[in-house]
Amino acid sequence: MSNIFTIPELDDLRMSEGVRPLFDAVKAFVRDHVDPIYPEFERLGEGRENRWSFAPGQLELLQGAKDKAKAAGLWNFFLPNAETGEGLSNLDYAYIAAELGKSPLASEALNCSAPDTGNMEVLERVGTPEQKKQWLEPLLAGEIRSAYAMTEPDVASSDAKNVRCAARLEGDEWVINGEKHYISGAGDPRCKVMITMVRTNPDAPSSQQQSQILVPMDAEGVEILGAMEVFGKDHAPRGHMHLRFNNVRVPRENILLGEGRGFEISQVRLGPGRIHHCMRTIGKAEVALDLMVKRGNSREAFGRSLIMLGKNLELVSRARIEIEAMRLMVLKAAKAMDVLGNREARVWVSMVKAMVPEKTCQIIDQAIQIHGAYGMSQFTPLAELYADVRHLRFADGPDEVHHMVVGRNELALH
Amino acid sequence: MSNIFTIPELDDLRMSEGVRPLFDAVKAFVRDHVDPIYPEFERLGEGRENRWSFAPGQLELLQGAKDKAKAAGLWNFFLPNAETGEGLSNLDYAYIAAELGKSPLASEALNCSAPDTGNMEVLERVGTPEQKKQWLEPLLAGEIRSAYAMTEPDVASSDAKNVRCAARLEGDEWVINGEKHYISGAGDPRCKVMITMVRTNPDAPSSQQQSQILVPMDAEGVEILGAMEVFGKDHAPRGHMHLRFNNVRVPRENILLGEGRGFEISQVRLGPGRIHHCMRTIGKAEVALDLMVKRGNSREAFGRSLIMLGKNLELVSRARIEIEAMRLMVLKAAKAMDVLGNREARVWVSMVKAMVPEKTCQIIDQAIQIHGAYGMSQFTPLAELYADVRHLRFADGPDEVHHMVVGRNELALH
Amino acid sequence: MSNIFTIPELDDLRMSEGVRPLFDAVKAFVRDHVDPIYPEFERLGEGRENRWSFAPGQLELLQGAKDKAKAAGLWNFFLPNAETGEGLSNLDYAYIAAELGKSPLASEALNCSAPDTGNMEVLERVGTPEQKKQWLEPLLAGEIRSAYAMTEPDVASSDAKNVRCAARLEGDEWVINGEKHYISGAGDPRCKVMITMVRTNPDAPSSQQQSQILVPMDAEGVEILGAMEVFGKDHAPRGHMHLRFNNVRVPRENILLGEGRGFEISQVRLGPGRIHHCMRTIGKAEVALDLMVKRGNSREAFGRSLIMLGKNLELVSRARIEIEAMRLMVLKAAKAMDVLGNREARVWVSMVKAMVPEKTCQIIDQAIQIHGAYGMSQFTPLAELYADVRHLRFADGPDEVHHMVVGRNELALH
Amino acid sequence: MSNIFTIPELDDLRMSEGVRPLFDAVKAFVRDHVDPIYPEFERLGEGRENRWSFAPGQLELLQGAKDKAKAAGLWNFFLPNAETGEGLSNLDYAYIAAELGKSPLASEALNCSAPDTGNMEVLERVGTPEQKKQWLEPLLAGEIRSAYAMTEPDVASSDAKNVRCAARLEGDEWVINGEKHYISGAGDPRCKVMITMVRTNPDAPSSQQQSQILVPMDAEGVEILGAMEVFGKDHAPRGHMHLRFNNVRVPRENILLGEGRGFEISQVRLGPGRIHHCMRTIGKAEVALDLMVKRGNSREAFGRSLIMLGKNLELVSRARIEIEAMRLMVLKAAKAMDVLGNREARVWVSMVKAMVPEKTCQIIDQAIQIHGAYGMSQFTPLAELYADVRHLRFADGPDEVHHMVVGRNELALH
Repeated sequence: MSNIFTIPELDDLRMSEGVRPLFDAVKAFVRDHVDPIYPEFERLGEGRENRWSFAPGQLELLQGAKDKAKAAGLWNFFLPNAETGEGLSNLDYAYIAAELGKSPLASEALNCSAPDTGNMEVLERVGTPEQKKQWLEPLLAGEIRSAYAMTEPDVASSDAKNVRCAARLEGDEWVINGEKHYISGAGDPRCKVMITMVRTNPDAPSSQQQSQILVPMDAEGVEILGAMEVFGKDHAPRGHMHLRFNNVRVPRENILLGEGRGFEISQVRLGPGRIHHCMRTIGKAEVALDLMVKRGNSREAFGRSLIMLGKNLELVSRARIEIEAMRLMVLKAAKAMDVLGNREARVWVSMVKAMVPEKTCQIIDQAIQIHGAYGMSQFTPLAELYADVRHLRFADGPDEVHHMVVGRNELALH
Repeated sequence: MSNIFTIPELDDLRMSEGVRPLFDAVKAFVRDHVDPIYPEFERLGEGRENRWSFAPGQLELLQGAKDKAKAAGLWNFFLPNAETGEGLSNLDYAYIAAELGKSPLASEALNCSAPDTGNMEVLERVGTPEQKKQWLEPLLAGEIRSAYAMTEPDVASSDAKNVRCAARLEGDEWVINGEKHYISGAGDPRCKVMITMVRTNPDAPSSQQQSQILVPMDAEGVEILGAMEVFGKDHAPRGHMHLRFNNVRVPRENILLGEGRGFEISQVRLGPGRIHHCMRTIGKAEVALDLMVKRGNSREAFGRSLIMLGKNLELVSRARIEIEAMRLMVLKAAKAMDVLGNREARVWVSMVKAMVPEKTCQIIDQAIQIHGAYGMSQFTPLAELYADVRHLRFADGPDEVHHMVVGRNELALH
Repeated sequence: MSNIFTIPELDDLRMSEGVRPLFDAVKAFVRDHVDPIYPEFERLGEGRENRWSFAPGQLELLQGAKDKAKAAGLWNFFLPNAETGEGLSNLDYAYIAAELGKSPLASEALNCSAPDTGNMEVLERVGTPEQKKQWLEPLLAGEIRSAYAMTEPDVASSDAKNVRCAARLEGDEWVINGEKHYISGAGDPRCKVMITMVRTNPDAPSSQQQSQILVPMDAEGVEILGAMEVFGKDHAPRGHMHLRFNNVRVPRENILLGEGRGFEISQVRLGPGRIHHCMRTIGKAEVALDLMVKRGNSREAFGRSLIMLGKNLELVSRARIEIEAMRLMVLKAAKAMDVLGNREARVWVSMVKAMVPEKTCQIIDQAIQIHGAYGMSQFTPLAELYADVRHLRFADGPDEVHHMVVGRNELALH
Repeated sequence: MSNIFTIPELDDLRMSEGVRPLFDAVKAFVRDHVDPIYPEFERLGEGRENRWSFAPGQLELLQGAKDKAKAAGLWNFFLPNAETGEGLSNLDYAYIAAELGKSPLASEALNCSAPDTGNMEVLERVGTPEQKKQWLEPLLAGEIRSAYAMTEPDVASSDAKNVRCAARLEGDEWVINGEKHYISGAGDPRCKVMITMVRTNPDAPSSQQQSQILVPMDAEGVEILGAMEVFGKDHAPRGHMHLRFNNVRVPRENILLGEGRGFEISQVRLGPGRIHHCMRTIGKAEVALDLMVKRGNSREAFGRSLIMLGKNLELVSRARIEIEAMRLMVLKAAKAMDVLGNREARVWVSMVKAMVPEKTCQIIDQAIQIHGAYGMSQFTPLAELYADVRHLRFADGPDEVHHMVVGRNELALH
């Protein structure tokens, strides 16, 4: 068995030279055109009547930034080596994603936000020409948004074999029945389609029972039961929705790749999706450390600045060390995907998925601690960052499953 | 110097025999009369128009439970060795408070909720007959509620000398100017009075500059600027309010104990207040462990119940060990207060204040992890428990200040 | 199932009144008669020719202390509720053992050292009159020492069913073949007998295959293969010996209690043995904290005493908190054994066995860190304390097995 | 101020292409010529009469390997960009050092062992032609060994200003008085010279009071007081010696670089020295993980292999993740030294010095735990690895000082 830890090529973690101008342009664009509109975007949202819609002016504000981004060529970075999009490698995109992670609107302004990126990647890799035309094109254009319906209530989703939502073929239609929850973004009025994991072949071997099917949000029988909160936030209007499929019918050709190939598609999807999350998370850890240092430097107690009291300066040091270690690990996992492919690089992906959200939660928590109760309030981004990153310890597989992947690989090496 | 760690009397941690029937009655009362009304109380609240009021029927529902509790003699347990209240010792109350902590409405139904308990204790100990008549009596009767205004924006409140909110005497009135935030419960329409920490003597030695003054909520110039969120929740209608005092005038006799004695009063108050919080927190840790075991037992993945996978069973064991250790420590701190008095027992109080919320946060976090994203949602109490207990790591002094107290005491012992 | 966490009687953790004079006498005796001879005892030992014997004068010095202890009635405290010995309860002995743990010679000077205490307890509980006469009497008199041969090489001893050392009956003799290692004290020339766990009934149900047999050290065929080191120390002349049994023959009546009852005896033995270890470990943690504070107070760097730099004072606080929590837990486990019996109290015993050595290792490690490299040298007791307590995380069952016991009990409670 | 965390060049962590054959040759050489002689080297050593000498045959055995290494050009890799030695960059050497760290004799067999490497680097950088001829040449040839005398008893060596060992000029000689301890390798009969940190200018600014002076081991007045143990081991015959300088006289020209430039030399020395230690430590962590997996796979308990029980597989995963993160960090710190120079890269060096030994200690400790008590014995390398790496948390500055360096740098960035 080849040892993925000793491949020389993976140790060149530099950004491609040609990408540096793009990277600089992204930073400048976020600074000049995205961050400045965020307070207004939030302010408008506060006044809206229906939590599950946008307020007048919100989307127009965002669209303005999107138009500028598209015009500047800062668009769809995430599709590596593809005909569409910028064709950035995972490694190059990693550098950019870390920047996007620092800003709450930046990913969307550049059409690089989850779960659309994963959905677009799947459509690009396995979609039929018709599927691409209908869904990939408007997604790449930023005209619609999408969701990914995988997690189900009442079963342990950490074991992907537990899918119960069922689709059966009746004539030329799939008839879908079941429930999904934590479907992020499914509350957004712009969300038009869901890639839905269903069980189509209950009698097949366990890894070939599942399929993925495109379900339009407006299909009859798609019922939104409510929004799952994350630490007290419903993230309206995007939300993490609880859905029920009541005899939902979609055309037979809405299946992706073919019956029983749901897991196979997951391999395509989850590598980049997981790594993008981790990349953005590095940016969030940087934000937390920055706030921690600034707060600690600006307050005094017992005659010294807070940052110089007790263990605080050591926590700053440990945060910096962990951030740099995480950054290198994410870059190396991205490089592994570029060099080895998603499948061969999956242990690297699991390594960073198990490492980055957990350590970043700790860094954000320490930043909260140095702020006092203020750190949990709406007046710093820390509580929201914490909720996001804590949530990430479940999304796309809980830490425990990724440690299992890494541990088992190790057993095979010795 | 006497060694507070070797006092034989402190090792008898039994509940008083006479209190056991009361303890059993509390458990039965919560089970029979409080927990059953909670879903309805919540449901009613959801429909209310003004977040900063109660919905029709909510208070009536709660009042019903309160009336029954008062009739049953399950009322005002927290006042140790006092003429008023049940006169429970801190130790006996610790057992009861751990039970109350398991239930979101129980403390209030039995008139044992923060910050009223601390405020009543202060009024009982240092109030004038007039102050007692005006504020203590209705508080003991559960007719009004109260707040404690200590923390300020813009300074490190971990150092109590940083109080900036100023009161100056003009004729027979105190004129108060400044800001306070995180004033829990000050949004509640039933909240009628705040005990407010102010700086009255800026030229005195630093520990004698502060005073505590009774300020009616409806005093002219008391302005509510907004509510501080805690991990995305504003806890309306009680809230953690941000207040401004704009030339607020209160009678000279509203001062407690006397000018420059603000810290002295804090000693009276903070011991029991802190210990009550920790007692209740033990109950919350029990709830989290219970949910962790139940969830882990009810879900399967990879062919085994979740609880038997990986490190989960060890986490259950560690949680049980930590809970029992915390329980004994809280009981001993309570006993120390009973035997030594609040002042001499302050190191014991700091020990449990530094220990219990931090460890309980970890236990709740592990319970969340075993639930998956569901553990962060509104469908388990875990996210709210986490926010409460995480908040407690700041309330009444952050962990770091309590560790400083304990560490310095230790230096003096060797 | 009864809940061992809610038994009121277990919360009275006071030493018996009548025992306090004894406790004070022990402390005075150790201070006056044991600690003063330790440097000389060590100095004498350094010069000896054969590492596996005592130097001339060493045993005489120790015997002098033992004679004084026996004369003063400070002898054999460990046997609870027994006709022999002091008849101290486990709880009372816990207080004393914590004191003994602070001093390297104290346990032996008072005839309270492992594994003799466990062996004496077993003999007292299940020995025949002949066995008692031959082995218990000289052990109680401190005339001989003993060993307990349980752990085996090449198998995971954490699962007690893995015993492979075999005894078969031939006529009136047991014939024993196999290996044992980590047999503490078996190198001591005074060690005269081993209680040996053997497999006698390989075809019985797995918990009835084992027996315990008394094997004299000088039996033909008992071969000492060498000493197992613990972090570089062989602890000569007592040692942790690796033994081979080569057709060792002992009389049939040397079996304890009866064939297939090896596990049953373990229940008698391991409760107190484990708890004694934990009691003494509390004393070791106190020594480490004391050294940590003294060193940190006596050195300066960057213009402050070490103890006031960085996280050091918080580590002192955390150590104190953990020590007090461990102390209460050990006292409660001892009380549980007194009230419920060894068998019913086994979960409590596992709780403290899993808790105390691990946390104490951390405290000792932190004390080492504040000493710099000096803390690892022979000039402080810290390296030896660390090795002892680290070893304890394996002795009588590794942490993991105890967490399994506690975790499984918890599953049954919810 | 330039940000050392955003320099693109530092992200190319590949070994130079030309070095790969050398790297492969080193691995083959250690496997074929060093590891095979280690058991015999140890066996010979056990029988020696004087612990502070080598046994007959030991040095000859080692010299055989050294001769082969020199002949094969596998010699003196550590001197980057120098006229002497292989001229490897720090980055390239990092890869090789990680391999050397896996084997107890490899560093010495290739003339790459501490503290000689640091001493040679200092002599090469700042030595006079005469100093180079006298000491550097035989060191580079592997004919003698050397020591570095920095740490002193009775002061906190973490603050380098605490040097008390004094040298005063009398005529053409420095007269040195004072004590040093933990002088590694000073017991070795082959050790011929010490670079000694002394205070020469007590009235100068605090960073200009110290000088470094070459002191021959056989100079009159150099007195070896004894050996400092590390977790029970004296590491004879090399040892960590406690020395006293009793009016030791050395020629004036034995000073390095000049009076008051002791700290300046430390900058030259400590960067590479620290990073070499960390590089080798990665190799030790790999050894521990390898042993952990092998042991866990080869033992069974409760019907499963140990490695599949409880948290063990997750610990394996975490160890792999940490090892890869540490490896990348060490490579990047080495690269930073290559690109920025030792001085500018010092924060990177502190980052890995604070990170690598602490995390590796945890990995080794977990490997010990899975072995049971056997893991602490002389029959696995784990106890010795633990002692080495635990020691490293003090050598060349304790963790705390490095965190201070990293933390302060961070404050300047925000």
